[in-house]
Amino acid sequence: MKVLFIGRFQPFHNGHLEVLNEFLPKADSFTMLIGSAQESHTQRNPFTAGERFEMIKLSLEKENIEGIDIIPIMDINRYSIWVKHVESFTPPFDLVISNNPLTHRLFSEIGYEVISPEMYDRSKFSGEEIRRRILSNESWQDLVPKGVVMVIERIEGTERIRSISAKKEGEINV
Amino acid sequence: MKVLFIGRFQPFHNGHLEVLNEFLPKADSFTMLIGSAQESHTQRNPFTAGERFEMIKLSLEKENIEGIDIIPIMDINRYSIWVKHVESFTPPFDLVISNNPLTHRLFSEIGYEVISPEMYDRSKFSGEEIRRRILSNESWQDLVPKGVVMVIERIEGTERIRSISAKKEGEINV
Amino acid sequence: MKVLFIGRFQPFHNGHLEVLNEFLPKADSFTMLIGSAQESHTQRNPFTAGERFEMIKLSLEKENIEGIDIIPIMDINRYSIWVKHVESFTPPFDLVISNNPLTHRLFSEIGYEVISPEMYDRSKFSGEEIRRRILSNESWQDLVPKGVVMVIERIEGTERIRSISAKKEGEINV
Amino acid sequence: MKVLFIGRFQPFHNGHLEVLNEFLPKADSFTMLIGSAQESHTQRNPFTAGERFEMIKLSLEKENIEGIDIIPIMDINRYSIWVKHVESFTPPFDLVISNNPLTHRLFSEIGYEVISPEMYDRSKFSGEEIRRRILSNESWQDLVPKGVVMVIERIEGTERIRSISAKKEGEINV
Amino acid sequence: MKVLFIGRFQPFHNGHLEVLNEFLPKADSFTMLIGSAQESHTQRNPFTAGERFEMIKLSLEKENIEGIDIIPIMDINRYSIWVKHVESFTPPFDLVISNNPLTHRLFSEIGYEVISPEMYDRSKFSGEEIRRRILSNESWQDLVPKGVVMVIERIEGTERIRSISAKKEGEINV
Amino acid sequence: MKVLFIGRFQPFHNGHLEVLNEFLPKADSFTMLIGSAQESHTQRNPFTAGERFEMIKLSLEKENIEGIDIIPIMDINRYSIWVKHVESFTPPFDLVISNNPLTHRLFSEIGYEVISPEMYDRSKFSGEEIRRRILSNESWQDLVPKGVVMVIERIEGTERIRSISAKKEGEINV
Repeated sequence: MKVLFIGRFQPFHNGHLEVLNEFLPKADSFTMLIGSAQESHTQRNPFTAGERFEMIKLSLEKENIEGIDIIPIMDINRYSIWVKHVESFTPPFDLVISNNPLTHRLFSEIGYEVISPEMYDRSKFSGEEIRRRILSNESWQDLVPKGVVMVIERIEGTERIRSISAKKEGEINV
Repeated sequence: MKVLFIGRFQPFHNGHLEVLNEFLPKADSFTMLIGSAQESHTQRNPFTAGERFEMIKLSLEKENIEGIDIIPIMDINRYSIWVKHVESFTPPFDLVISNNPLTHRLFSEIGYEVISPEMYDRSKFSGEEIRRRILSNESWQDLVPKGVVMVIERIEGTERIRSISAKKEGEINV
Repeated sequence: MKVLFIGRFQPFHNGHLEVLNEFLPKADSFTMLIGSAQESHTQRNPFTAGERFEMIKLSLEKENIEGIDIIPIMDINRYSIWVKHVESFTPPFDLVISNNPLTHRLFSEIGYEVISPEMYDRSKFSGEEIRRRILSNESWQDLVPKGVVMVIERIEGTERIRSISAKKEGEINV
Repeated sequence: MKVLFIGRFQPFHNGHLEVLNEFLPKADSFTMLIGSAQESHTQRNPFTAGERFEMIKLSLEKENIEGIDIIPIMDINRYSIWVKHVESFTPPFDLVISNNPLTHRLFSEIGYEVISPEMYDRSKFSGEEIRRRILSNESWQDLVPKGVVMVIERIEGTERIRSISAKKEGEINV
Repeated sequence: MKVLFIGRFQPFHNGHLEVLNEFLPKADSFTMLIGSAQESHTQRNPFTAGERFEMIKLSLEKENIEGIDIIPIMDINRYSIWVKHVESFTPPFDLVISNNPLTHRLFSEIGYEVISPEMYDRSKFSGEEIRRRILSNESWQDLVPKGVVMVIERIEGTERIRSISAKKEGEINV
Repeated sequence: MKVLFIGRFQPFHNGHLEVLNEFLPKADSFTMLIGSAQESHTQRNPFTAGERFEMIKLSLEKENIEGIDIIPIMDINRYSIWVKHVESFTPPFDLVISNNPLTHRLFSEIGYEVISPEMYDRSKFSGEEIRRRILSNESWQDLVPKGVVMVIERIEGTERIRSISAKKEGEINV
């Protein structure tokens, strides 16, 4: 099977890593699609596509995981054509992994098989929880691979998340 | 008079039909403008422009209503030029029918006559109420023309609305 | 069969009319797609989507042709997703009529049947030839249906084409 | 120092004026950037860029303030490149004045000095408060320069704000 | 009269200056609109909007010309709504100055008075000629105001024009 | 050094391969940026980003080349902010490889080191020449790695190039 694993990876975390460990051994090809690639510097999407790419790449290297393609893709705000947009950016695939109900629906309507992975302990292993911990100065480093910690430290990502938190996302206009 | 009836028609329902029945007999021309044509697969805009076009067309055929032009139009997120955008997509008109206060304001500022139709029993005849009923598995079929039921069944629209409901609109990013 | 007839209709002319006369009798549904709907006021695309819509509508009325849907659609400059864009704006179709090689290719790759109509006397019945004649003040009125002449006269279309001709298309920047 | 003062100026008010009075005397050049220039006719952004430009220009004239450049700029919804977008629209600057945390972060990451002015009595001197007062028919004229009152009256701005208030911003689709 | 002088000003030159000198004395207000503000680094549009803004501003200062508003505006590739786009970015105007036939047509269709200034010696005083001279290393400095020379030197504009000339405009893709 | 190798790779060919062989051994990281990722189905850009990604990936596998990141990126038609756009999509880099003069200029203005590789026998090893050969049915397979031939055959790419050749690029509107 040819896997397409779709996420925003804000940031890449141990829950994602477990998905890789489960599906990669059975896959003929495995592509990670970094969605909302145009987003950054918001509470919900603090990191750029390039930063997320590097987090994943470094983590895979340190975990000795090979054979994964990583492709960032910008949103296209037309759900009726979004699957086609994805297809034009990726090698062929036949299995989609995603936890998002709309992604499920869109790929299913076209005939793709879609799987929602049982994420292990979602109360901890979710991007939202990790961003919340960073914001409130709690410990978060053990929820992500080492490579992610390294990149977040280099780009001063925790400071970024806190400095933009005074403003609700979407309110910035200038 | 040349009527422009503006709505999203998500879906077309009996309230819209009553507007047609009231204004069509007095109109020299009558254009229905399907707004937000680029939207689909969300709670608020579940159906594509093409699906909505077909719902209206079929309903008019079954009701033996003739002489209506149906034109889908994508949003342009610039209110200062939106009226001009509409004018460039439609035959000439001089009366605008819409229940939306901003649409009222925008067309009025340019000098158009704008009417808010008294929709009959808005607690039932609104797209929002119909989508709510579909979502909660209540009866909705008697609030819309037969043609709408037919299209929604063919495209499995009720299943679509329910499957995307686990996610709040606007939250999907990939 | 369900026909989708794709063109820019700048303007609608007798060659298009012959296509209608040939295919409409055999069709279960017939949709005319007005492409490049966002374009106007250039040598190649002088008329707005609304003006083109009205030209076609009036011509069909005067020719007593019924049962044709007319849908304007804006370009989306991504050929890999263009077919999907079209599908989201139209009722279902299974036969595409177009003289454009790229349109042919794009719909064929997805599996649609595509036909290039033998246009009768293309030296005369082409939008390009009609626009050329208007520009050089030659006779053009007998190449288009009466409804088209009426709209072009009302909007002073010949004057428009001539006034913008001093400039090569695409050169206007402000 | 070369100042860039960033705001939406919906509308320009006495708080902004105090910022000018404080920083203009020390500045080698002073540019006011009218952000979200594409927005208008919403509760949050009622006035067009042109209307806001005129409000500021008239106010400066009446206050005998000279030497200020006013530049409207459309949003670009990519925070990672927004600073570059600004740089391409303005003369050189080295000090940014803004009350927005994200603006702070974005310009700081690139190395600019950024200042949040102590706005005098923010409970009164804020665009939000002024728009609220207009909406609820309270007195607002003493919070803004005379030039602003004049433009708002000429364009019937209070009526605009009230007429669009029945609708929550962002909900208008057609 | 309230003048709107539309150009790309790539760069601002003595021909433009003569237009100012002719019309400014009679004008109640005078706005210069810098079109194609998003363009830069091409043969046809080498300078950013900010650079062009500064060229004009400096030139006016050195010529002791006051009372001119300078507003950059991005293109909107929809001619049917372009005038409305301009109106939303500028103070009110009633006379348009432009040498472009399409600009003429678009503003005339809406009812504006439009003037094509007799540019003095267009063989020399045109942006195209100045860019050609820069490219071929001929003398150009006497065709533009001093302020323009200063900005072009500071930003190393002649080097920019020459370095990008190996490539035909529009061919760059990555 | 951290290399960013920018191209459209329409298709990836032996000239590109030689660049890899020359620079990869000296590089700490090596990213290939697939530009104009949104383009496909034209004479100049026949293949989608996904197809190009796969061509490169397969070729690298067959050549036993490891350690290369491949990132597709859509154009942003604003040269003044294009470098920033690239930076937001990629891991850090300090050396840019490109044969395009504008790319050179844009990265140089920001301070990057940029290299134009001496491409070996550009009369043969260029995308343009390869596309020309495919179009005119000449031999092209020996100019590209095996992986590229495999993908072009699977997607029937030669047929695609020939079928769209009847039309000059840019002329398709619907």
